Amino acid sequence: MRKALVTGGAGFIGSHLCARLLDDGREVTAMDNLFTGSKKNIEPLLGDGRFSFVLHDVTEPFDGEFDEIYNLACPASPVHYQSNPVKTLRTSVLGMINALELARRTNARVLHTSTSEVYGDPLVHPQAENYWGNVNPVGVRSCYDEGKRCAETFAADSRREYGVDVRMVRIFNTYGPKMHPNDGRVVSNFITQALSGENLTLFGDGRQTRSFQYVDDLVEMIRRYMDLPRERVDGFFASKGMGTPVLNAGNPEEFTVRELAEEVLRLLPGTGSGTVFAPLPADDPKRRKPDISLAKELLGWQPAVPLAEGLAKTVEYFRSVSGRG
Amino acid sequence: MRKALVTGGAGFIGSHLCARLLDDGREVTAMDNLFTGSKKNIEPLLGDGRFSFVLHDVTEPFDGEFDEIYNLACPASPVHYQSNPVKTLRTSVLGMINALELARRTNARVLHTSTSEVYGDPLVHPQAENYWGNVNPVGVRSCYDEGKRCAETFAADSRREYGVDVRMVRIFNTYGPKMHPNDGRVVSNFITQALSGENLTLFGDGRQTRSFQYVDDLVEMIRRYMDLPRERVDGFFASKGMGTPVLNAGNPEEFTVRELAEEVLRLLPGTGSGTVFAPLPADDPKRRKPDISLAKELLGWQPAVPLAEGLAKTVEYFRSVSGRG
Repeated sequence: MRKALVTGGAGFIGSHLCARLLDDGREVTAMDNLFTGSKKNIEPLLGDGRFSFVLHDVTEPFDGEFDEIYNLACPASPVHYQSNPVKTLRTSVLGMINALELARRTNARVLHTSTSEVYGDPLVHPQAENYWGNVNPVGVRSCYDEGKRCAETFAADSRREYGVDVRMVRIFNTYGPKMHPNDGRVVSNFITQALSGENLTLFGDGRQTRSFQYVDDLVEMIRRYMDLPRERVDGFFASKGMGTPVLNAGNPEEFTVRELAEEVLRLLPGTGSGTVFAPLPADDPKRRKPDISLAKELLGWQPAVPLAEGLAKTVEYFRSVSGRG
Repeated sequence: MRKALVTGGAGFIGSHLCARLLDDGREVTAMDNLFTGSKKNIEPLLGDGRFSFVLHDVTEPFDGEFDEIYNLACPASPVHYQSNPVKTLRTSVLGMINALELARRTNARVLHTSTSEVYGDPLVHPQAENYWGNVNPVGVRSCYDEGKRCAETFAADSRREYGVDVRMVRIFNTYGPKMHPNDGRVVSNFITQALSGENLTLFGDGRQTRSFQYVDDLVEMIRRYMDLPRERVDGFFASKGMGTPVLNAGNPEEFTVRELAEEVLRLLPGTGSGTVFAPLPADDPKRRKPDISLAKELLGWQPAVPLAEGLAKTVEYFRSVSGRG
């Protein structure tokens, strides 16, 4: 039985990935310091004899024999990652160093989850993997953006210098059950507001667009990516003139924030909620849209879950944990 | 007597800084792993009772009570930093983490030496401190560029979150005695070639421009910067709308590579050397030119040593260590 380690395994995406890896017949270890992750997210898995949970902070070295290491540990929403920026940076950078060292020692394959934030405030649309990004190295979002960029550099160099089989995915806006209700993002904000009978806050005129990837689509992409033989991955990226395997994963379909609000209100009729407008905050997340041509070509993958369907499942989850509805 | 720690103190710039700090009445500890630094660089200082040398790698935590920490440790020329990219990254990032932790514990003031490489392949000329740069996160130069960017982020966040008094300087092309003869840079290449009676290699048509800062100018700038009271530094950058103290240090005067070659040949007559042309290499360093308005305004500083004078001293040094001439 192949053994997988998932750092950040009790987080939003990590817990979905753990469940899927068990479904696929893996023995799975979830590692988490439970800073933003939660034992609740993995409760349904604890009864499975092939699953184990390790309370550990990835900034401290760790050990173990795994065939695959999925490196997901890092606070990912601004409200969390800005609450302790130095800790966020350390998690990103030292976590990557520790995962890569373990992989090097044990010859494990590594999936590193990077982020669309490495593109910063992009000057090109949509963003392809060879775009270098536009990031402030010393701003208030830098702890996340630069931490993730530096983790990518460690991964790329560990591959070049030591031959570590590391694959990177830059994750765009992703939503779904087990999202943190207070992560400050638009999907969770809207659903939480609607469930409380509050009006949904639209910033600016609500016409700014966002793309939303349902978490199952992302997990499917990651699984296909990690199942490919190394030669296939190496050959593919070499043919593209890229020395490092990096793929975007996101949903290129764009919706306005206003459309999202309408969809949430449609799914939660009878809450009495409407919409209110508020001024655009200074650090409003910038529009980003993934170019997923490479992932399509290499993996035959593209997002399959429509927004209405994914939102319905997410609303259901929020309803169940809020005790409302 | 104020106590200063200089990491990378046996390196090119570090050894000059140590000498200057002693001149200024400091007690100085030079820390170096001697990977690219050399005991020879600090030999003249070893007789001074206020000077000490510690053989230590900054990637491992260190201790001590200092008033000032100058963080210079990192291989800085492509030929060195690309020889072991993962080690370069670790030096940049972990060295910064360790320096900042010590500063936080002991309330020391920190000078962090960053680099013009954080601007990457710049899309604006000249580069001011608020330019975010254009850097490939996963390329062969990334270990240096991204390592230095990430170190800046750690510094900026440690200042914001823990109040560490850290000041950053982005150093542009700098030359002078004690440069590494094999660092692959144009100044050392030309002098080494001329001293060996070889022709000086001009890449491309030799009309590309470079700016060259003499090391004494840089050291003067660093000393002025670190002597300012914290309130003055904070107030100045706040008035510029910058949350983080970052200053460029470089010489904005530009010379063509051909002019540099002519100057070297003028200083070394009778070597029989001429010039030869070779194709431009793929990773030829990009043109960068510092905007030093901020340093001028805050420190009343600008480079004072003309190229001819600085080059003469550098040639003298190379001649003395080569045993030629």
